[in-house]
Amino acid sequence: MNSRIRPMKFLVPGLKRKSLLPQETILEMYGREACECLCKDEKLKLVFSKERPFDLIELEQLLEAVGWTRRPVRRVKRALDNSLVTVGLWLHDPSFPRLIGFARCTGDGILEATVWDVAVHPFYHGCGLGKKLMEYILEVLRDMGIERVTLFADPGVVSFYEQQGWKLEPKGHRCAFWYAN
Amino acid sequence: MNSRIRPMKFLVPGLKRKSLLPQETILEMYGREACECLCKDEKLKLVFSKERPFDLIELEQLLEAVGWTRRPVRRVKRALDNSLVTVGLWLHDPSFPRLIGFARCTGDGILEATVWDVAVHPFYHGCGLGKKLMEYILEVLRDMGIERVTLFADPGVVSFYEQQGWKLEPKGHRCAFWYAN
Repeated sequence: MNSRIRPMKFLVPGLKRKSLLPQETILEMYGREACECLCKDEKLKLVFSKERPFDLIELEQLLEAVGWTRRPVRRVKRALDNSLVTVGLWLHDPSFPRLIGFARCTGDGILEATVWDVAVHPFYHGCGLGKKLMEYILEVLRDMGIERVTLFADPGVVSFYEQQGWKLEPKGHRCAFWYAN
Repeated sequence: MNSRIRPMKFLVPGLKRKSLLPQETILEMYGREACECLCKDEKLKLVFSKERPFDLIELEQLLEAVGWTRRPVRRVKRALDNSLVTVGLWLHDPSFPRLIGFARCTGDGILEATVWDVAVHPFYHGCGLGKKLMEYILEVLRDMGIERVTLFADPGVVSFYEQQGWKLEPKGHRCAFWYAN
């Protein structure tokens, strides 16, 4: 087995499940560091990938489905190109995998990384996929040797991050935003 | 006059002052997009630069002087190399300019930028240099076309950023930190 494939790490604790997808398929379709996401729903064939390219229209549709404002595709493309990590969560299909989750990071690759645009399609909420997506992205960042990861949480998801060990406003830090327009 | 040099923008309002440094000197020593920082203290010859390279020991000494923990130089070097923008505020000297201020940004270069490590040497506090440093960095980011800039403010500097038009926790955003160790 290729040591870079880490499917078992993302298994739900106590849930004994075997992979639904051959390693070769994962490697071939989703890239070398892709890994299967085994979730509570036993029928879902899901894969995390840092490498499989995005269809930008599909990505914006996903982000719109979670309630965010659509952004110009050309600007999004540049933002993705300049991101430190972009992760897709794919619903596997041999000919047409569908993007059902996404997250990306900016950062300096060593001291700081900041997570943006964390989204799981509402149709797949309740399966613990958001948690697995964050686990995957944190593992990628840990592999890079990054010391600290930051994010800005909407009021509705603050407890989601807290439950996963994120510290809210440590040492009294406050977040501040400046808008160009 | 080279259109990329913008010394007058950083003049204190109502304070009519002429440049203390020839444009040629600024260009030659601090790079093409450098600009003089004219502050309340008329004797200080100060220059903002995105290009003049840092002595990493001098940089860490500056950050230590404002009370931050020293970080391994090799990691800092990589972080600076991977930053979107690094800005130095230099006390001019024809042969040995001294670094008295610093700030850097990470980001995707188009949608998001995050400001880190904003520091002005305590000896030069009270001249409005922190404000000018932020103005300079925001102008650089605006030139890039960045939509939104974010930062994490220590409790002691929250009002400093508020006074400059930064919005604290807009729409109830909370900041969350995750630490590798």
